[in-house]
Amino acid sequence: MAAATSVERVDSEMTRIMLGVNESSMKGYPNASISSKSAFEWTLNKIIRSNTSGFKLLFLHVQVPDEDGFDDVDSIYASPEDFRDAKRKDKIEGTHLLEYFVKRSHDIGVACEAWIKKGDPKEVICHEVKRVKPDLLVVGNRGLGPFQRVFVGTVSEFCVKHCECPVVTIKRSAEETPQDPVDD
Amino acid sequence: MAAATSVERVDSEMTRIMLGVNESSMKGYPNASISSKSAFEWTLNKIIRSNTSGFKLLFLHVQVPDEDGFDDVDSIYASPEDFRDAKRKDKIEGTHLLEYFVKRSHDIGVACEAWIKKGDPKEVICHEVKRVKPDLLVVGNRGLGPFQRVFVGTVSEFCVKHCECPVVTIKRSAEETPQDPVDD
Repeated sequence: MAAATSVERVDSEMTRIMLGVNESSMKGYPNASISSKSAFEWTLNKIIRSNTSGFKLLFLHVQVPDEDGFDDVDSIYASPEDFRDAKRKDKIEGTHLLEYFVKRSHDIGVACEAWIKKGDPKEVICHEVKRVKPDLLVVGNRGLGPFQRVFVGTVSEFCVKHCECPVVTIKRSAEETPQDPVDD
Repeated sequence: MAAATSVERVDSEMTRIMLGVNESSMKGYPNASISSKSAFEWTLNKIIRSNTSGFKLLFLHVQVPDEDGFDDVDSIYASPEDFRDAKRKDKIEGTHLLEYFVKRSHDIGVACEAWIKKGDPKEVICHEVKRVKPDLLVVGNRGLGPFQRVFVGTVSEFCVKHCECPVVTIKRSAEETPQDPVDD
């Protein structure tokens, strides 16, 4: 796993595919969401196939900043150091999530880089696309109906519209969808 | 080039990529539009790369039926046979368009099939996706701004929303855009 600054265009002879990945809403860190895993597996099986040396995967995990801290029910913030610790905990959890994707890529023999950013996922993904200039962005999608989308919003729709590179959205398969499709 | 009926899922071990292709609005048949060619070249260079045996390309060309016949200014329709001839002419011109893509695929060594359908391009593409079940649909896009899109409409936006498979839209590069971006 390399720092974001090392993502340069030196490897321009490879096809560079960026994947937006997030944690499972049901199981939490370090588990990847079903849609992230679907997008990853689709990329491996349908695009990279046996040509492992022709591609480089760029895993981006965006963490939504927890402004009020209520998310982190076990923590008591008594000093500035406590906040630093909470940030460090986020970072460690995000790192464990990325580890799953990096390890699997490594096992298969596909080059990769992975990094974490804080912010609004859709905005950060588009910003990172602009900076890193991948050949393709692959994002998962929960496959929500129009009624559910109104409340949840979809990162993928925003990326298709605004990212400055080709974008492909991979829907979860029906059999992988949890009881409440808004989950995971 | 094979008939549409032969497009079966027997080659399921290959990644099957459908490409929607159309003629140049400026140069007419048999020239392919800039956006069709961009989508094709992107697929070859960024996805297929050297792995020519891992992919099969499915070229679909949709012809918009010319209801009043005014398009075909050189023709005089005096009998039902004349209409049959006009239809045949369409078919021949469409075939020449597909020939460009099939020949280039053949030269590179990528398996392919190509066929022509009549109808509203966006509806027909989605219908053919449902029937043929490709792993990915690649469509070109003229990269029109929101103002131009209102009048022209984009097939790619419709496909992203409605086709039952992953869809990737490839925009023309800025230097390939003709003076009037609605062209080609």
